[in-house]
Amino acid sequence: MNTYTRLTDQHLAAITQIVGVERFSTRSADLDLHARDQSFHEAHPPEAVVWPETTAEVSALLKLANAERIPVTAWGAGSSLEGNPIPVYGGLLVDFTRMNRIVNIRAEDFQADVQPGITRLELNKELSRYGLFYPPDPGANATIGGMVANNSSGIKTIKYGATKDNVMRLEVVKADGEAIIVGSRARKDSSGYDLLHLFVGSEGTLGLVTEVTLKLHPLPANFSAVLAAFNDIESVMQTVVDIVGAGLEPSALEFLDTETARILNQDKHLGLLETPHVLMEFNGASDDAGLNDALDICKANGATNIKTAAGQEERNKLWQARHHTYETILRIHPGKAQQIVDVCVPLSRFPDMVQFAGQALADNNLFGYKFGHAGDGNLHMNIIYDQSNAAELALVKRVNGVIVEHAIELEGTSTGEHGTGIGKRPYAVKQHGAAIEVMRQIKQLLDPNGILNPGKIFL
Amino acid sequence: MNTYTRLTDQHLAAITQIVGVERFSTRSADLDLHARDQSFHEAHPPEAVVWPETTAEVSALLKLANAERIPVTAWGAGSSLEGNPIPVYGGLLVDFTRMNRIVNIRAEDFQADVQPGITRLELNKELSRYGLFYPPDPGANATIGGMVANNSSGIKTIKYGATKDNVMRLEVVKADGEAIIVGSRARKDSSGYDLLHLFVGSEGTLGLVTEVTLKLHPLPANFSAVLAAFNDIESVMQTVVDIVGAGLEPSALEFLDTETARILNQDKHLGLLETPHVLMEFNGASDDAGLNDALDICKANGATNIKTAAGQEERNKLWQARHHTYETILRIHPGKAQQIVDVCVPLSRFPDMVQFAGQALADNNLFGYKFGHAGDGNLHMNIIYDQSNAAELALVKRVNGVIVEHAIELEGTSTGEHGTGIGKRPYAVKQHGAAIEVMRQIKQLLDPNGILNPGKIFL
Repeated sequence: MNTYTRLTDQHLAAITQIVGVERFSTRSADLDLHARDQSFHEAHPPEAVVWPETTAEVSALLKLANAERIPVTAWGAGSSLEGNPIPVYGGLLVDFTRMNRIVNIRAEDFQADVQPGITRLELNKELSRYGLFYPPDPGANATIGGMVANNSSGIKTIKYGATKDNVMRLEVVKADGEAIIVGSRARKDSSGYDLLHLFVGSEGTLGLVTEVTLKLHPLPANFSAVLAAFNDIESVMQTVVDIVGAGLEPSALEFLDTETARILNQDKHLGLLETPHVLMEFNGASDDAGLNDALDICKANGATNIKTAAGQEERNKLWQARHHTYETILRIHPGKAQQIVDVCVPLSRFPDMVQFAGQALADNNLFGYKFGHAGDGNLHMNIIYDQSNAAELALVKRVNGVIVEHAIELEGTSTGEHGTGIGKRPYAVKQHGAAIEVMRQIKQLLDPNGILNPGKIFL
Repeated sequence: MNTYTRLTDQHLAAITQIVGVERFSTRSADLDLHARDQSFHEAHPPEAVVWPETTAEVSALLKLANAERIPVTAWGAGSSLEGNPIPVYGGLLVDFTRMNRIVNIRAEDFQADVQPGITRLELNKELSRYGLFYPPDPGANATIGGMVANNSSGIKTIKYGATKDNVMRLEVVKADGEAIIVGSRARKDSSGYDLLHLFVGSEGTLGLVTEVTLKLHPLPANFSAVLAAFNDIESVMQTVVDIVGAGLEPSALEFLDTETARILNQDKHLGLLETPHVLMEFNGASDDAGLNDALDICKANGATNIKTAAGQEERNKLWQARHHTYETILRIHPGKAQQIVDVCVPLSRFPDMVQFAGQALADNNLFGYKFGHAGDGNLHMNIIYDQSNAAELALVKRVNGVIVEHAIELEGTSTGEHGTGIGKRPYAVKQHGAAIEVMRQIKQLLDPNGILNPGKIFL
């Protein structure tokens, strides 16, 4: 067990020396702004916040913290969903939002070098001038650094992959303050060990990322979309498997359950059948590439209603259903909180997972909405609860745990895209078996004093 | 520096106890068959060969070897190109060709569990019955275990990714004999550290892989191909960048230089213009999806001749040019050997790389053929030399080194797909800078006695 030092006046003076008084704060307003993410996990303020602007500053901060045993937690947009950036041991919070420059767009290499504090939407706005984009889209306007830390993914993963598939190279400052480069600018690389993927998804527990080289993709010229209603989840998943199996390469392949369709009707008057739906998108060589084959597959699997859209504008209308789910749930349940379940299982187990999650809710008199990235087997469920009711929150956590354990039994994962953070730590042990010990050894190797984001990933 | 024990009669008896007399050999014929791969690196026989059939046997062998400090090197098809499986310190060679079963094809999950000794072609033959395939194609009929060890890729990487992108889960036996599972069967996973990618490409130096879960893809229903001639390499690469940038998503995007076109004419009477060529393939929703846009791009970049093919049969004819390059070179240069250069650079640096490699040959009165996976920036060059001429071999090695160093200067990698093995060790240091020390620490952590494939990756 590591022991940590509380920040003394001498530490504060040394930190101010590194970043200057303007980019350093111990004001409670600043501490409170960095005390919690978007999850239900308990808030915990840091002792001080800094806003570095260079790798050299990050390096100097870590040298100091490592020598003095001060916990260091990195911060992006605060949009994490598993308590990942909550500084549970206090210490120093490193807010990367002032390291938010695009260092270089190498359009002809389909690459960009960016600082970790830039947000996904800022980056994509700039990239669009080159006809390019960075696909991973977790919904929230997360920072690229945060997405690297949590290996975020989202709706477009089925075609473009997760963050880990779209990061080529990182500059990382180790716990001892040394900056290293992992990965390369080559699109293929078989040299040495793959340290790049060790750092992606490590939630700031192995090093702090100070520069990221991203793989870019051409902006699609064509869009089409299909929203199809089915009588049951089995038909939904057969449709998903058939779409993937036909090689149609959708850019999104989503699931909405009956309850979600119902409130979208209430809130948005979409006129959906109140049954499970599949929502898919294609970015083919033409507006209707993929569309006709997809329609045939939907019909063959007993679709009871099909809406189609060709072109970006029509597609956007159809996608409202999916994009506004979170806000719609908020409006339909004013004053209530949502716990977002995030599990991922092999495709053939998805119907079991959906059925089990629904039953777990019903058995405990809870209510929730199931949707998610069905093409990846990634189920989300937003469980509704009253934040002021401690017993209900405890029940929600317990039911979430039951669902996560079932996902692991189905040979899936305890977290598809939100990371291990605080809440998934007990399940990481169960999921990884003896491999968790190797993870622990690597943590010990790279961060022997345990200063980097303590209290995360490992119990 | 690790010191190793030579196998004693007692060791041999203990090993025989584990695998039985039938799957154990110290006969010189068996030792010699496992003394070298397809590279120019010096042969070195092991002291004994075993053919395990189960994970438990591999585990028992490693426990013994680790306790007794016996070097252990894994073997697949012996088709490596960088000396990766040569047992340079002798010891025990573990030949995986009897662990070659398909454990389970989970067609509806687009996954297969296989043992490491199965070859790519055997596997794909079986998968075709399900309308599925495993895309990484290094040319040689490598074993899946060998491909995992070297992170092999090949022609289809531009669309489907390298081995690292198509492996979901591994069973790995560590140096101490403990078997662990890394990765999962979920298509997305953000739990814990990514140990999966640490083992992929580690060339058997961190653990021995005993089972692999692969990601499968639907067999394409449609094929089209284009072979286009250009006056210079700049036009070739502008075409490559425009094809990728247009979002046409080719399943192959290859380059052939003037000299390669010339010998293909001599050997195959293909009637090619003797200038640089681009060869590309599309697996779209129809035979001509992508084809027409690709033709427009070729014309806009000054293509002087264009051949097209729609459908698999026509496509196969066109692809003869690429597939038979190696054999054609052998026929045109009877009795000569080929040293295969493998470097990979950002796309914009590819013309520089090609020009530099050509000049390096000319400056040293050597002769070679340049081709490769241009869409990935991966250049190959086969340098022709006389194997009986030690001075010429030394020169070829030196020129290869100069080319590799230039690739690193262009922010590329010393090896795109052949691995570090023996020959690329000096360049790994230059390429990875301070990160090589982290790699060394991880090696030390997971293999403290240095028994696993010693003499590879690190100098």
